Amino acid sequence: MKAASRLEADSIGSLEVPTAAYYGVQAERASRNFEITHLKMSPVFLSNLALIKKAAASVNFKIGLLTKPQADAIKTACDEVIAGKFAADFIVDPIQGGAGTSANMNMNEVIANRANELLGGKRGTYDLVHPNDQVNMAQSTNDTIPTAGKMTTILLSEKLVASLDKLEASLRIKADEFSDVIKMGRTQLQDAVPMTLGDSFAGYASMVSRLKKRLEKATMEMHEINLGATAIGTGINASQYYEDHIAGQLSKLFGFELKQADDLFDATGNLDSFVEVSGALKACAISLSKMSNDLRLLSSGPRCGFAEINLPAKQNGSSIMPGKVNPVIPEVVSQAAFLVCGHDTTITMAAEAGQLELNAFEPVVFYQLFESFTALTGAVDTLVENCITGITANKGRCKQLKEGSVGIATVLCPYLGYQLSAKIAKRALKEKRSVRELVLENHLMSEEKLDCLLG
Amino acid sequence: MKAASRLEADSIGSLEVPTAAYYGVQAERASRNFEITHLKMSPVFLSNLALIKKAAASVNFKIGLLTKPQADAIKTACDEVIAGKFAADFIVDPIQGGAGTSANMNMNEVIANRANELLGGKRGTYDLVHPNDQVNMAQSTNDTIPTAGKMTTILLSEKLVASLDKLEASLRIKADEFSDVIKMGRTQLQDAVPMTLGDSFAGYASMVSRLKKRLEKATMEMHEINLGATAIGTGINASQYYEDHIAGQLSKLFGFELKQADDLFDATGNLDSFVEVSGALKACAISLSKMSNDLRLLSSGPRCGFAEINLPAKQNGSSIMPGKVNPVIPEVVSQAAFLVCGHDTTITMAAEAGQLELNAFEPVVFYQLFESFTALTGAVDTLVENCITGITANKGRCKQLKEGSVGIATVLCPYLGYQLSAKIAKRALKEKRSVRELVLENHLMSEEKLDCLLG
Amino acid sequence: MKAASRLEADSIGSLEVPTAAYYGVQAERASRNFEITHLKMSPVFLSNLALIKKAAASVNFKIGLLTKPQADAIKTACDEVIAGKFAADFIVDPIQGGAGTSANMNMNEVIANRANELLGGKRGTYDLVHPNDQVNMAQSTNDTIPTAGKMTTILLSEKLVASLDKLEASLRIKADEFSDVIKMGRTQLQDAVPMTLGDSFAGYASMVSRLKKRLEKATMEMHEINLGATAIGTGINASQYYEDHIAGQLSKLFGFELKQADDLFDATGNLDSFVEVSGALKACAISLSKMSNDLRLLSSGPRCGFAEINLPAKQNGSSIMPGKVNPVIPEVVSQAAFLVCGHDTTITMAAEAGQLELNAFEPVVFYQLFESFTALTGAVDTLVENCITGITANKGRCKQLKEGSVGIATVLCPYLGYQLSAKIAKRALKEKRSVRELVLENHLMSEEKLDCLLG
Amino acid sequence: MKAASRLEADSIGSLEVPTAAYYGVQAERASRNFEITHLKMSPVFLSNLALIKKAAASVNFKIGLLTKPQADAIKTACDEVIAGKFAADFIVDPIQGGAGTSANMNMNEVIANRANELLGGKRGTYDLVHPNDQVNMAQSTNDTIPTAGKMTTILLSEKLVASLDKLEASLRIKADEFSDVIKMGRTQLQDAVPMTLGDSFAGYASMVSRLKKRLEKATMEMHEINLGATAIGTGINASQYYEDHIAGQLSKLFGFELKQADDLFDATGNLDSFVEVSGALKACAISLSKMSNDLRLLSSGPRCGFAEINLPAKQNGSSIMPGKVNPVIPEVVSQAAFLVCGHDTTITMAAEAGQLELNAFEPVVFYQLFESFTALTGAVDTLVENCITGITANKGRCKQLKEGSVGIATVLCPYLGYQLSAKIAKRALKEKRSVRELVLENHLMSEEKLDCLLG
Repeated sequence: MKAASRLEADSIGSLEVPTAAYYGVQAERASRNFEITHLKMSPVFLSNLALIKKAAASVNFKIGLLTKPQADAIKTACDEVIAGKFAADFIVDPIQGGAGTSANMNMNEVIANRANELLGGKRGTYDLVHPNDQVNMAQSTNDTIPTAGKMTTILLSEKLVASLDKLEASLRIKADEFSDVIKMGRTQLQDAVPMTLGDSFAGYASMVSRLKKRLEKATMEMHEINLGATAIGTGINASQYYEDHIAGQLSKLFGFELKQADDLFDATGNLDSFVEVSGALKACAISLSKMSNDLRLLSSGPRCGFAEINLPAKQNGSSIMPGKVNPVIPEVVSQAAFLVCGHDTTITMAAEAGQLELNAFEPVVFYQLFESFTALTGAVDTLVENCITGITANKGRCKQLKEGSVGIATVLCPYLGYQLSAKIAKRALKEKRSVRELVLENHLMSEEKLDCLLG
Repeated sequence: MKAASRLEADSIGSLEVPTAAYYGVQAERASRNFEITHLKMSPVFLSNLALIKKAAASVNFKIGLLTKPQADAIKTACDEVIAGKFAADFIVDPIQGGAGTSANMNMNEVIANRANELLGGKRGTYDLVHPNDQVNMAQSTNDTIPTAGKMTTILLSEKLVASLDKLEASLRIKADEFSDVIKMGRTQLQDAVPMTLGDSFAGYASMVSRLKKRLEKATMEMHEINLGATAIGTGINASQYYEDHIAGQLSKLFGFELKQADDLFDATGNLDSFVEVSGALKACAISLSKMSNDLRLLSSGPRCGFAEINLPAKQNGSSIMPGKVNPVIPEVVSQAAFLVCGHDTTITMAAEAGQLELNAFEPVVFYQLFESFTALTGAVDTLVENCITGITANKGRCKQLKEGSVGIATVLCPYLGYQLSAKIAKRALKEKRSVRELVLENHLMSEEKLDCLLG
Repeated sequence: MKAASRLEADSIGSLEVPTAAYYGVQAERASRNFEITHLKMSPVFLSNLALIKKAAASVNFKIGLLTKPQADAIKTACDEVIAGKFAADFIVDPIQGGAGTSANMNMNEVIANRANELLGGKRGTYDLVHPNDQVNMAQSTNDTIPTAGKMTTILLSEKLVASLDKLEASLRIKADEFSDVIKMGRTQLQDAVPMTLGDSFAGYASMVSRLKKRLEKATMEMHEINLGATAIGTGINASQYYEDHIAGQLSKLFGFELKQADDLFDATGNLDSFVEVSGALKACAISLSKMSNDLRLLSSGPRCGFAEINLPAKQNGSSIMPGKVNPVIPEVVSQAAFLVCGHDTTITMAAEAGQLELNAFEPVVFYQLFESFTALTGAVDTLVENCITGITANKGRCKQLKEGSVGIATVLCPYLGYQLSAKIAKRALKEKRSVRELVLENHLMSEEKLDCLLG
Repeated sequence: MKAASRLEADSIGSLEVPTAAYYGVQAERASRNFEITHLKMSPVFLSNLALIKKAAASVNFKIGLLTKPQADAIKTACDEVIAGKFAADFIVDPIQGGAGTSANMNMNEVIANRANELLGGKRGTYDLVHPNDQVNMAQSTNDTIPTAGKMTTILLSEKLVASLDKLEASLRIKADEFSDVIKMGRTQLQDAVPMTLGDSFAGYASMVSRLKKRLEKATMEMHEINLGATAIGTGINASQYYEDHIAGQLSKLFGFELKQADDLFDATGNLDSFVEVSGALKACAISLSKMSNDLRLLSSGPRCGFAEINLPAKQNGSSIMPGKVNPVIPEVVSQAAFLVCGHDTTITMAAEAGQLELNAFEPVVFYQLFESFTALTGAVDTLVENCITGITANKGRCKQLKEGSVGIATVLCPYLGYQLSAKIAKRALKEKRSVRELVLENHLMSEEKLDCLLG
């Protein structure tokens, strides 16, 4: 046995664990079994899981199943976990077999060891507070893990919505700023009809507003939790008092209202609510990517492109081409969006693969869902700060393009009919002349009326 | 020129069109340019597009832009299209370049030709009613096509929800029927703790109820249309009267409330609402697939599987294995679900790819979205009629499996602690004995208490 | 019983079948059970399945398990199916439960009924030739259906490769034609350094060449079939003679070499080869979509875009904007590409979902894979004929953009260093002057050397 | 200015950089602009990028564009980077805008600063070795980054193939071990016909062998690099000598043969080769997931499932259910597989989104592709070590299930016909008797022949 090790045993057998570790044999085993991403579990998720443990200890104490010292020690240990004190002791890979049992046991072990310590015991002996019997009391992996996942989603979603708020506001400011910049609209990348640059940005703002609402709506589903279901929904080993009070107690600690699902079997076995949230996130992501691509198109140039707007210069654009400045911020937004779309595929497949009373693939669902939120929030933040806010318009260029366009022939249709208007447009293009000129030359309309139409 | 052809011209040039055809040169051109799926456009979609044309004709007549004979002829032609009279004249592939311009022009041409005919003209001459100037008056592909797409989605979604209603009802019936069938629950395919078979079916019913609500919620977005936006959102070539009345007029004809979007630029350029609907559909699909897989697991056997339930025999299961009956209905549900997931990828990518004032890829979005609805509705219908309704339980088998299981050791935990309970469970498995036996043999609990716990 | 019906029975029970039908009770049952897409199965697939039946009849006759009249009648019936004579008798939905048993039985029934008829019997009585005992002899759904799927893939892939050949050739012609059109290259939509338009098209041609080879490589896997596996790979009910000769006999009829897989269990249970083909198709699709988007960018305008090339006008671009011509062909290519990507998701999920000795979800795999091929081939064909071939260059515009660009400052780096070059580029942009001018004005380089560098 | 900061400037402006940092202003800027994943770039990727810099320095020195001291200092700095000495100085997020310019400049800056230091200069002054002029000489982000990506893929793929080798070997061992364990095969989860457990494992081994070959084949594409393309494929600013020697020089250092692509425009603008590799990886992943699900099915129980095999116990299965052992290793494999599928979606979308001469979205492609490899390799490793190797068979259970099954009626077909065999099978099921018994009772076959058939 290594010098700094203690020996711990579980049903599988015994294993060396570092003496200093707050985690125990089950986490140790898991960290060896699952070397998949080589990353750490989300700290927000761990904090929420600890909050559940704390709420459970409170309720179990009230009904008399824990002694006061036990409950107090557990609650203190939970608070320390939440404060990030044992970050290094959460050693299980975010992708793990077993529906999160290893995450749950890693937490149970850290809290049990710390609680024991607080009560005068030492790490690795669980006689005062046992990970399963006291810390996990009235709980199961199958209700704590999804509940912690939902709580985490609520917090991450709130953060993204706040970022989207800022994005909408910054777009509205630009919409006002550009409200008198007349330019050509383009459909299918072909010159269409005139509009203002403000219209574009107002349109984006409206879009962001909808994305936000949709996300909030989807996140509502996260407030329905299955705590009290324990293993499969029967509530086995949880007292009636616990059933009645755990959601309320947790809501109080968490700050957001959580409600026990009406059907705990459904709530334990099905992960479609996460698919729904990921779907709303995906709809958000692709819309932001589309807008980002628009920004790249409108700022294309500086001399060989559309060049209607300028994005703020944020990076040297090239290691070889001097003076080149690229639309790096919109590019990173699109990449985050593609990431979210891919994660949605993973989440969808994992949710589909559930079998009978449980979906064993929650860990990968959470890993990808949380990363989707983080990445998209980061992308929106940099988009606001480093791009939208600094966009300027090339008013002269916009005007010049509009005036040279033949797309304005559209306004003639109600007066001259589609066919004649089309003929004029084609001739203008072919002879490199303006629509205005041709209409007047052919006495199709008075100059006065034409000026009025062409605006 | 072929005997039975007429020559028609547009801006591109002239082309032969069958003399008998109600469609014109633009549809003819499109049918040659786009041979992608070799299928027809959705009849529901075409019917909705005709309804838009009818509503527009009404409004345009009221403001005096169409004569009464023109408006009447157009409206009659629309009614005939809606009645399916010209099904063969819609010749454009559902996947087409141009954001639906070809679909829109195919419709405009059929209506114009038929209206002309009603007014005494002949097909191919558009002097009385012109496809662009009269039928398409105040409209653009860019507002009519997405609006027709949204209307179609509303109808298809309503149909699916009705089917899900039936599914939920049939599951609730089974939940009642099986409410006293005690069986082992399984997590991760391993024996867990007892539950009833009714719990399983009630859980599915709860799930379906949520899927349904979510779908209805997502479909709400479809009621916001961009009619009046015309080309890009400016409403160019549409009168103020039209702007004010078209949504109302269309709602009246359609029977569902439709509302003009507040921001017509956003509503014209962004397709995220379809992504949202497809996402809700996907969440629905994978949940149904998961349930279908459960049904296959529970009915696995007849002799070498779980064999807790029997699915009704609907097909000879094998061309080579006599007497084999397979879970063909749940299998077809899963396939429809995979289809929906794939279509969601297509819809997502197409929505992301929009550029500036328009998304040119609406046709493939609609093609896949409509097929998702149709396939899933068909799958749900056959699931209800040919599977759920006829499911029976093998009550004896369920009981026998439950009684032999060691999963029931879970109930001992609160009394004996996790570690001792685990030891008993392991020993039971190893020695092929029952948990009950071992508890009593070791005097760990009174027989009375044990019986009470084991239920 | 309906006047024109006959009553047929199978293990499930008896059912009315139209008297005139060549299909029998099992197909009838399936057509009622599976109303999912409301489409027909692929005729190429059905033809290949009939070819398998024909090859099996030959081999079974040679070993003495069929009489000569039976074998001859079966083979004639197969030839008639292949000639498309009974198209209307294949009534099962392409998406069907049961791993293709219904497709296989529909085929067995049509052939049996027709063979009976040829031998003087009548439809619905299978005493001379029974669908299972004679037509399906030595076969199972589980080996015939995947084999027919592989044969179909080989044929469809060959067709797509031929279309890609034409595409490559048309791109090479344009590469030559545009080899002296100097233009600015763009990275991240920002002006980069000069290149020729020919370079772009040559690059596309090289890409298509690679896509083609990759597709051919992936399709090689399709030549390994599991005929002889029967139900699960043991070859139960197939004679050794059949095992030894069926692949050879089928190869002879089919015209492509097919080889029995070394491991028939693997070949029966796993569908990854179809995932591989779909993956190659997807890589092909997205590359074509990227090129199509490039064509849309380069032809954007006509006055407010890049306008470096002109795509041939193939459709009136708009129902409202006269004279507008849109890049409809590249747009339809991108849509077909998105379709292929979505189908790949479906195929992936269905392949993953296989269980133990069989994957029951082959029908949806084939349905989507075949549609992927058809759609992409159609897209490539129209791309060649209606777009690439007719592309013209705006040589003057290309030259003008290049000369106005500051991207050419890149060539100064090796002589002036990155930092000074960047300074010149920035100043040129700011002062709206040319790089050439600034270099000379600041005596940074001789005019002679500069001209040599700037080309 | 902060105490420990130096001020550095680039075209965008000046910025504080920590005095001790080897990275410079551009990396600093990027680390602020791109806070997306909050992770580090792949060390393998960085090592490969440094190797490219080293190879370039060698070639540039030989043609006389770098002095010996410059070249030596650069090469030493590269070696130190490869040795991991400056790990903390690579501060840019793996997801970054700008096609990898920030990764490339981060590397150029670290090497330049270190080289300067080696030559007696100090960090932040680039007069002896400039990041762009000397370290990046003859290179561009657009050729170094994709080349480093390909090199990384080659190494990661080699590692995965080695793990798959071990997997195949461990499966073959089990195939031998279980070659005489007769059991029922199952199709569609229904009892089919007998086979051996060895057949199953041999089938998996054959599958793995194919997955491996396919991956190797796909990775072949990675050996074709675009070094020498510089910005867009024209090779601007690279000498002919460099063009001729860089691939060879790099191959020598790297240990794998790398070859310059024939068409550098194609090789710079298109990322389909990464899509192809990801596709092969996905086909691999889903096949492993399917096998993992099979293992979960076969080991389901211990008392209420199939229970034909036992997986080694690797984790306590439950925090609440004592004695429960779950199939955690196969579960983690499926999760890694879902991850790979999602990443494939991301990679596909990013590759499709390239525009003109460059795909700006390489960073997310690499981020996800590398994680796909790492996760799948980790999953395969734990599958071999912690699962396959320890699987045992429940021979008695397998035999018992097989003997009770009616699926063996299949062998009767060639003798009794499909219909009669089906009748016997159905009766056996209904009356809970054995097929053998019924055949004998009805004198359908001699006992001797029957025993021979039933094996």
